[in-house]
Amino acid sequence: MIIVVNNNISDSEYKELISYLKEKKAEIHEVRGVEKRIIGVIGNKHKLDKDAIITFEGVEKVIPIIESYKIASRQMHPQATIIEVGKVKIGGIQPVKMAGPCSVESEEQIWQSAEEMAKQGVDILRGGIFKPRSSPYSFQGIGEIGLPWLRDAGKHYGLPVISEVMQIKQIEDMYDYVDIYQVGARNMQNFKLLEELGKTDKPIMLKRGIAATLNEFLMSAEYILSQGNNKVILCERGIRTFVEFSRNTLDINIIPMIKNVSHLPIIVDPSHATGRRDLIIPTTLAGLTAGADGFIVEVHPNPHVALSDGAQQLNFSQFAKLIEDYKIIENSVEILRAKKMKEIEKDASSSLQ
Amino acid sequence: MIIVVNNNISDSEYKELISYLKEKKAEIHEVRGVEKRIIGVIGNKHKLDKDAIITFEGVEKVIPIIESYKIASRQMHPQATIIEVGKVKIGGIQPVKMAGPCSVESEEQIWQSAEEMAKQGVDILRGGIFKPRSSPYSFQGIGEIGLPWLRDAGKHYGLPVISEVMQIKQIEDMYDYVDIYQVGARNMQNFKLLEELGKTDKPIMLKRGIAATLNEFLMSAEYILSQGNNKVILCERGIRTFVEFSRNTLDINIIPMIKNVSHLPIIVDPSHATGRRDLIIPTTLAGLTAGADGFIVEVHPNPHVALSDGAQQLNFSQFAKLIEDYKIIENSVEILRAKKMKEIEKDASSSLQ
Amino acid sequence: MIIVVNNNISDSEYKELISYLKEKKAEIHEVRGVEKRIIGVIGNKHKLDKDAIITFEGVEKVIPIIESYKIASRQMHPQATIIEVGKVKIGGIQPVKMAGPCSVESEEQIWQSAEEMAKQGVDILRGGIFKPRSSPYSFQGIGEIGLPWLRDAGKHYGLPVISEVMQIKQIEDMYDYVDIYQVGARNMQNFKLLEELGKTDKPIMLKRGIAATLNEFLMSAEYILSQGNNKVILCERGIRTFVEFSRNTLDINIIPMIKNVSHLPIIVDPSHATGRRDLIIPTTLAGLTAGADGFIVEVHPNPHVALSDGAQQLNFSQFAKLIEDYKIIENSVEILRAKKMKEIEKDASSSLQ
Amino acid sequence: MIIVVNNNISDSEYKELISYLKEKKAEIHEVRGVEKRIIGVIGNKHKLDKDAIITFEGVEKVIPIIESYKIASRQMHPQATIIEVGKVKIGGIQPVKMAGPCSVESEEQIWQSAEEMAKQGVDILRGGIFKPRSSPYSFQGIGEIGLPWLRDAGKHYGLPVISEVMQIKQIEDMYDYVDIYQVGARNMQNFKLLEELGKTDKPIMLKRGIAATLNEFLMSAEYILSQGNNKVILCERGIRTFVEFSRNTLDINIIPMIKNVSHLPIIVDPSHATGRRDLIIPTTLAGLTAGADGFIVEVHPNPHVALSDGAQQLNFSQFAKLIEDYKIIENSVEILRAKKMKEIEKDASSSLQ
Repeated sequence: MIIVVNNNISDSEYKELISYLKEKKAEIHEVRGVEKRIIGVIGNKHKLDKDAIITFEGVEKVIPIIESYKIASRQMHPQATIIEVGKVKIGGIQPVKMAGPCSVESEEQIWQSAEEMAKQGVDILRGGIFKPRSSPYSFQGIGEIGLPWLRDAGKHYGLPVISEVMQIKQIEDMYDYVDIYQVGARNMQNFKLLEELGKTDKPIMLKRGIAATLNEFLMSAEYILSQGNNKVILCERGIRTFVEFSRNTLDINIIPMIKNVSHLPIIVDPSHATGRRDLIIPTTLAGLTAGADGFIVEVHPNPHVALSDGAQQLNFSQFAKLIEDYKIIENSVEILRAKKMKEIEKDASSSLQ
Repeated sequence: MIIVVNNNISDSEYKELISYLKEKKAEIHEVRGVEKRIIGVIGNKHKLDKDAIITFEGVEKVIPIIESYKIASRQMHPQATIIEVGKVKIGGIQPVKMAGPCSVESEEQIWQSAEEMAKQGVDILRGGIFKPRSSPYSFQGIGEIGLPWLRDAGKHYGLPVISEVMQIKQIEDMYDYVDIYQVGARNMQNFKLLEELGKTDKPIMLKRGIAATLNEFLMSAEYILSQGNNKVILCERGIRTFVEFSRNTLDINIIPMIKNVSHLPIIVDPSHATGRRDLIIPTTLAGLTAGADGFIVEVHPNPHVALSDGAQQLNFSQFAKLIEDYKIIENSVEILRAKKMKEIEKDASSSLQ
Repeated sequence: MIIVVNNNISDSEYKELISYLKEKKAEIHEVRGVEKRIIGVIGNKHKLDKDAIITFEGVEKVIPIIESYKIASRQMHPQATIIEVGKVKIGGIQPVKMAGPCSVESEEQIWQSAEEMAKQGVDILRGGIFKPRSSPYSFQGIGEIGLPWLRDAGKHYGLPVISEVMQIKQIEDMYDYVDIYQVGARNMQNFKLLEELGKTDKPIMLKRGIAATLNEFLMSAEYILSQGNNKVILCERGIRTFVEFSRNTLDINIIPMIKNVSHLPIIVDPSHATGRRDLIIPTTLAGLTAGADGFIVEVHPNPHVALSDGAQQLNFSQFAKLIEDYKIIENSVEILRAKKMKEIEKDASSSLQ
Repeated sequence: MIIVVNNNISDSEYKELISYLKEKKAEIHEVRGVEKRIIGVIGNKHKLDKDAIITFEGVEKVIPIIESYKIASRQMHPQATIIEVGKVKIGGIQPVKMAGPCSVESEEQIWQSAEEMAKQGVDILRGGIFKPRSSPYSFQGIGEIGLPWLRDAGKHYGLPVISEVMQIKQIEDMYDYVDIYQVGARNMQNFKLLEELGKTDKPIMLKRGIAATLNEFLMSAEYILSQGNNKVILCERGIRTFVEFSRNTLDINIIPMIKNVSHLPIIVDPSHATGRRDLIIPTTLAGLTAGADGFIVEVHPNPHVALSDGAQQLNFSQFAKLIEDYKIIENSVEILRAKKMKEIEKDASSSLQ
């Protein structure tokens, strides 16, 4: 931690600060420039609180040096984490394809979707049972009745299933029916929910909040990890910016950045990150080329009658085009992935020696 | 609702769209320009889904005309809502002063704070019991043990109390101890929590999410209102922007905007909106001049040892300066408020005739 | 300057960095933690380039400690700068009222405006002659022919005039006709234009770019100041954010922040910061209460037929309401200003001792 | 154009609006709902000004239907524009590789760079002669003396050159020395500069401003195109967002979006869009996969001693890794491009029939 102090600080104020730091058993290194004083502090991070130090008179800035996430950090865990869900490996050489309807709407709709997704080579079936909606007057998801439909359709076609959990109570309700719990962007900082998910033994796909920083995103992962569940899958689903032509802005930069600083897999969600069918295919491919461990896309048998998010759902033939384009780059993407994984793990390991 | 259609649509595609709309019992008005066709649609909003219509071939845009919030709307309720908490009126001529520590840390600390706040003329005592923190390794609030401390200190000094609720379970736990439930920015779209709060009879202060639009903010209020609880207090606490010198950017524009479109009171929170002690006083005054119905500010007996958010907590003498400056403008702000309230109510009423 | 180095750096790489710094005559202080090494560097800022140092292997961050603006800095110049334009003082106790049409459109229109503005107590008359427009097909301003109209109308009613300069060539063309040159938000980083304006002897009102940081804003002021022209007036006119109900977001926080770090006056521009007539009055008052040295507002005799920016121009009776509301707070704002000026100057002076 | 009117409008106000529209020879279609009235307007866009109409009492919104850019529009020009610079084709099947130092610093440095870039298969050599810098105290570019160095080095190694133009005066000075003029992000709305560049016969690479919308970006292209120069190359170089780990956020969504709405080529600039060497390679590849017509990357023989932007410049061996990774995906990217070009042109042509 570095403390920047204005030279107009009085002697007694400065002494007060120094004795506070010493009380906390911090090792202190002072450097005095013409306008400012710098204090380098080494010591027990838990005892030293940035927010407390900044309240001392004359202190202008407190700059933390060590990242606050630990278990999520690549430095602590150079090898990429690979999460197995049935036969599917998330985080390995092969990118993972997740697809399915925004919401489960009927037994027929999800069976029809599962059949088509299996046929198209999808690895994991998505389907919302509980839906967070901005308006209390909108469709809120089919609810518990849909859980066996989703599970059975997936099982029949050999597809593990992923579905969003919105409340602590639903963790148990959903347990027997889903293979991966999804935490939506709006719940990225619903810390109690994260903690409870950290106590389960199922993989959690954690979506980045629309205004979450890299650090906040990884600290939310840390909430789950610190409870003992190390099967966390990150998901970039677009951030909110001034841009008006797309619903959100896909932060493509964060994909390789996550790979640098964390060992957790990261999935790209172009449906939410663009909000427009005509941008989904190119951004899916871009996400994978940038290093994403897979994609999740919304596909509906008939988007005209979808009960949620029609604008961003592909129909079956549009999804077939995505798969067709993906196959063009698939092989080179996998060569690239194998190469990158080695490079990053080597770099990270060397930093531990 | 207005539908913009590209003129390259085929006749059969166009017919498909029109018959879909007619099926929904919509009244249709078609206008054909050189490049685009416009369809004006009047009808049952609940049956017409923007997201479904956009999935039809050739449809470029669907533009809703009517706002989606209803109970929160000024048009439906021209008179300003005034919420009474004990003797305090929120939303009336006199702005309301809420202050107290970020977190309740000990019985002594909250009693000391309550005494001072009462002395300084504060109307409502704030104090966090459960704290949402970005890091699982940070202080998470004193927890239930602090509830009676907060209530008793408030009661002794005649101050109603406000405290944050993070989970459905806590609604009941806190019921006997708080006068106003606060919903934090991170929970603005925790819809189940909002629904449950809508079933209580206590006022709810709903903080705007750091990336929430005006519409999303009011739709979250609508979640509470639509359950029957009409005591909703809005709170602007800063939004996340590219700006780096302040923790957030106070969106001062939203204060008069809320007054135009809604009858609900709105409070300004300069502690979070700036994140810096040196900006709190001027932005508090600015918020009130712009029309806010009160302010909420974090004050701590000794910010050096605060367990959370020290950087933005005022100490007692700094808070005394805020009150001193506030008194300079108090009278003119109240004259302004009385004048504005009449103007807005008159405008809104006339639009109902 | 602080350099954070990863401990995985090799000995030879570290030596290379240290010898680079020593070559630059920097004084070096090394602190070694478990994961990172910190190097505190004191020395000639001009010789040490952040961007060069970060290119060394193992360097993770380079953190500058001293602000890069100098002449604009409050620390170097504790007294507030007051700029005199005729009898008007910008930056003193009395806030300054600037108003007039977005564009000068005809001789009659600007004379009519000048007459009304003078009657309403405005201090400075605004009027665009050259207009930067997003579209090449929009009205681009009346051009040179309007310059004498603006000057003569202003002179007749005793109002100094301000008008935007877009190109180096126009500096000379406008010299005899305007009292203050305005630099628009789009030109905030048109550095050659700023340099040339720095060689004139007239006041410059520099508008903040829609995505400019505090530092970039003050560094642009520094371009003018460093050429010898110390009459720089800053102007906050809203930033671009995700917010959709207003054209821009007025960054109210920057007003007191500028007062802390700089001695230059700052004007608030609610017309551009909101883009909506119904938000102009409350945000004008808020800006002044937050400490702005004045406001600039667009007023047009008949906004229906305005050739630019009609949506945000007030008509004469709407502007009269602004003045009416302003008078309610005028006196208390001036008391507040006098108090604040003393406090800030005292703080800044003490830091020089 | 669609006008939304509040039903609280008085009859006389409504008549005033309608007669204004009729005066402008607009064809009017009125639709009356319960709360609002909608007026569909067809007619001469040039005569109808959105900003004027919104000033009428009762008008709530004016929604333009037709895009404001014309010459830049894909609808007017379904075939992709291919710009030839010597033997290089920008916008064709093969993506274009532009690279070189941020600034030309010496004759030796640019010759060394040119030699290496040619060896690595680069198509176009970049090198800044005039540099826009946030600080007046930073290196401002080598200036005119560097122009022949850049041209001669390029010529010797068979590389056309691109360099930034900051002022109208420099257009002529640079004319004999550069093959492509670059307009920097800060000058994207320096409209007079754009107009003058529109009168030259050389290709212009126009960088998107850090806070520019899609429409503003294309309207700036329109400034050049409308003067007769149709050789406009767009460049996405990152936008300013709340994200703090990268200097900017690469808006990957805009790449396929531009392809949909415009025929102009678009280049991706990962150096500025990330500001970090460790993110350049994956984002370059992602940009190309998303459909960019090429990339521009900063490469310096020795970034340690670079006079500008060291942090984001690759050294020669880092650039060799970029080329190595690019070669892995090159073939599949070209297959994808050929496929996409056909699809988009077919779609756009059909819309003209």
